[in-house]
Amino acid sequence: MLKKIPHRLYLTEEQMPKQWYNLRADMKEKCDPLLNPSTMQPIKEADLYPVFCEKLAAQEMDDDTRYFDIPEEIQDFYKMYRPSPLIRAYNLEKALGTPAKIYYKFEGNNTSGSHKLNSAIAQVYYAKEQGLTSLTTETGAGQWGTALSEACSYYNIPLTVYMVKCSYEQKPFRKIVMQTFGANVIPSPSNTTNVGRSILEKDPLTGGSLGCAISEAIEKAVTTPGCRYVLGSVLNQVLLHQSIIGLESKQAMELIDEYPDVVIGCAGGGSNLGGLIAPFMQDKLLGKASPRIVAVEPASCPSFTRGRYAYDFCDTGKVTPLAKMYTLGSGFMPSPSHAGGLRYHGMSPILSKLYHDGYMEAVSYEQTKVFEAAVLFAKQETILPAPESAHAIRGAIDEALKCKESGEAKTILFGLTGTGYFDMTAYNAYNEKTMTDYIPSDEDLAKSFDGLPKVSDNK
Amino acid sequence: MLKKIPHRLYLTEEQMPKQWYNLRADMKEKCDPLLNPSTMQPIKEADLYPVFCEKLAAQEMDDDTRYFDIPEEIQDFYKMYRPSPLIRAYNLEKALGTPAKIYYKFEGNNTSGSHKLNSAIAQVYYAKEQGLTSLTTETGAGQWGTALSEACSYYNIPLTVYMVKCSYEQKPFRKIVMQTFGANVIPSPSNTTNVGRSILEKDPLTGGSLGCAISEAIEKAVTTPGCRYVLGSVLNQVLLHQSIIGLESKQAMELIDEYPDVVIGCAGGGSNLGGLIAPFMQDKLLGKASPRIVAVEPASCPSFTRGRYAYDFCDTGKVTPLAKMYTLGSGFMPSPSHAGGLRYHGMSPILSKLYHDGYMEAVSYEQTKVFEAAVLFAKQETILPAPESAHAIRGAIDEALKCKESGEAKTILFGLTGTGYFDMTAYNAYNEKTMTDYIPSDEDLAKSFDGLPKVSDNK
Repeated sequence: MLKKIPHRLYLTEEQMPKQWYNLRADMKEKCDPLLNPSTMQPIKEADLYPVFCEKLAAQEMDDDTRYFDIPEEIQDFYKMYRPSPLIRAYNLEKALGTPAKIYYKFEGNNTSGSHKLNSAIAQVYYAKEQGLTSLTTETGAGQWGTALSEACSYYNIPLTVYMVKCSYEQKPFRKIVMQTFGANVIPSPSNTTNVGRSILEKDPLTGGSLGCAISEAIEKAVTTPGCRYVLGSVLNQVLLHQSIIGLESKQAMELIDEYPDVVIGCAGGGSNLGGLIAPFMQDKLLGKASPRIVAVEPASCPSFTRGRYAYDFCDTGKVTPLAKMYTLGSGFMPSPSHAGGLRYHGMSPILSKLYHDGYMEAVSYEQTKVFEAAVLFAKQETILPAPESAHAIRGAIDEALKCKESGEAKTILFGLTGTGYFDMTAYNAYNEKTMTDYIPSDEDLAKSFDGLPKVSDNK
Repeated sequence: MLKKIPHRLYLTEEQMPKQWYNLRADMKEKCDPLLNPSTMQPIKEADLYPVFCEKLAAQEMDDDTRYFDIPEEIQDFYKMYRPSPLIRAYNLEKALGTPAKIYYKFEGNNTSGSHKLNSAIAQVYYAKEQGLTSLTTETGAGQWGTALSEACSYYNIPLTVYMVKCSYEQKPFRKIVMQTFGANVIPSPSNTTNVGRSILEKDPLTGGSLGCAISEAIEKAVTTPGCRYVLGSVLNQVLLHQSIIGLESKQAMELIDEYPDVVIGCAGGGSNLGGLIAPFMQDKLLGKASPRIVAVEPASCPSFTRGRYAYDFCDTGKVTPLAKMYTLGSGFMPSPSHAGGLRYHGMSPILSKLYHDGYMEAVSYEQTKVFEAAVLFAKQETILPAPESAHAIRGAIDEALKCKESGEAKTILFGLTGTGYFDMTAYNAYNEKTMTDYIPSDEDLAKSFDGLPKVSDNK
């Protein structure tokens, strides 16, 4: 154990995890199976091969293997930018006047600007191994697209990125980063796919959504020989790769004899949240500890807090398998908020199941409250957070303020997934007080729920 | 000693330097004194008090004190984002096929995006200690302005930043970051100062320069009660604070039993270069080792390689003391290249003296060659470098390629001062092949040299 708690704690290369942890192995009740959209029957691994590369399809379906070895090449790549630091937010604590101890795991210290690189490099590695010749994906805020562009450039695999149109317009520089790494970036919906054309026909001015961009990327993948689709969130395989965040965090906390009372992460599709909480949730599932686990989502896209736990398509175009998850309906078109990475109608099936079974809590915030937290954090900790990450900051600050009231010295851990360098349009709107909060009405949601697929399970 | 060389080496908090190193103490021949612009006589410390806070003026004039204790508050602030990693560029080495070992010290892992925070926090700390109520500065690329905005926000001191106009226009988001940290950002030349108005009168369409922005910031400081001016480069005090880069680098290299054969840094005003090389130059001055030390500058603003070693003003408005340095003439208006942080007519007097006395080399590159190196580096090491930093990358790559020819396994250390997140306009120009190289003609330089002040020393 380290005697003194440093501001930033980095594991050594020797201490870095050599295996990913598969949370599903320890779930007493497993997630409901994916359904094949054409038969509405549980999907088989081979059904996924036209879309995903085979090793990733196997990871997607594996409910039992507890640990997966991280291939050595991926370990080596991780060493280029990992371990990420576990940081004690001494200044933020002081500014809040809280007795709580606030820690955050900072994943923004790499050019992709976020945790997304952890899964991107893994997915491209397996694609290369299988001899695939190109990849497609979608991106919301652009963090996943950037990470994947880096990974594809590293392995020299051509990449097409469908970028949600409102992000494409809000973040012109994100596009250039991806292009610098060699990616072909297309605003979605686009006229390069059938699904894109059909969405544009109905609503030519739409800002797009992750669900719609996913449809386009999948269509492109299945209609191009040697091409497959990769996804930066929601999927089980992604949570598996992202478990490195939580494994490193837990190990670093052990070095300073700490254990979180509360673990907080922002939730869009669940990639960071699922990765961060993995080993802590394991403790909870195995009855070894009982940390509170809190998902923070935007009030404009409240899958956990106002969604239905139901079978739904993962995309707008209804070409993906159906997953049992918290969803606002695949036709839900979120308002153009600035946390583009959280504008997704659904949620990781693993996290949805755990939330449904009472292992997790969820809260939602309006974006002005989130940016207030972001600016306070930036001024105290000198890291300018991504709007997505700032949701977790807001959650952590509110937990710390509760501790101030109650006088409890709780240990709070949150995930700071990325930096906001490409979100200056949003910060400008906040600075200039032109930022607006959007909350979907009950009527809007009810209408969206009406579009849920008619599966026997969906009552 | 560590047995295995890791990809990224971080010192522990205990290993972090607790003193800055003052290179001047070990110089056999000291720099020529600053001259008072009204008397042309050597300046006294108290002459600087109207412009600089007193502790910093003392550091500026001190040729003898070898080590300065870093105040504890600054040490604590450093721990928020330091130590910065020393990284072995394994992938870049492989891509180049060089036997050379390439290391870089990466200073971009903080929100300011560069090494500038090292001096910013020190200068604001001393200003606060003296009870000053506001500060002014200039910024080129925006890295210094961002760092200082962070530091001022931390100590709650109002800040006015004069930002070189062409950077202000090329990098709109930089401005917003500074504003998010509470700074008042003004494009320079502006009509808020006499010197700005007079420059605009002569050339209303000028893109501005660091020299001109400095004049404006100083005018504002000396005409505002309780206000002082702070500067992010050139000055002796800045090189003192930045010595932490070199001290950490040297200590990290000792842990893996390495010592550089060549140390390479980009050179604008000299803040990073002077900090990076400090302890290695000490070894050279004391005859303990003889590493080559190489400054890399833009061909569009070639102070070392084509400038004169002469007394000159540090600003365009001729309000600063005169320094003996390599200069292109304070009236030199560099072309609007994308490495805004290197667009300065002069050079640190310390580095100028060392270069003049043969302790250093210098090379210059055109910007397309620099961006070629930047993109290669980004694809291999997954860090998108700032255009300024990419000059050092270009230098390091060319040294590594020489090693490939000669078969020598030299150890190369370079400074990666910052990230290019706010330089996407430049990357876009490079990607789209619309980037142009500008090299000043001999006639232009001769004309600019004609404007050098008539001091007996300037032959």
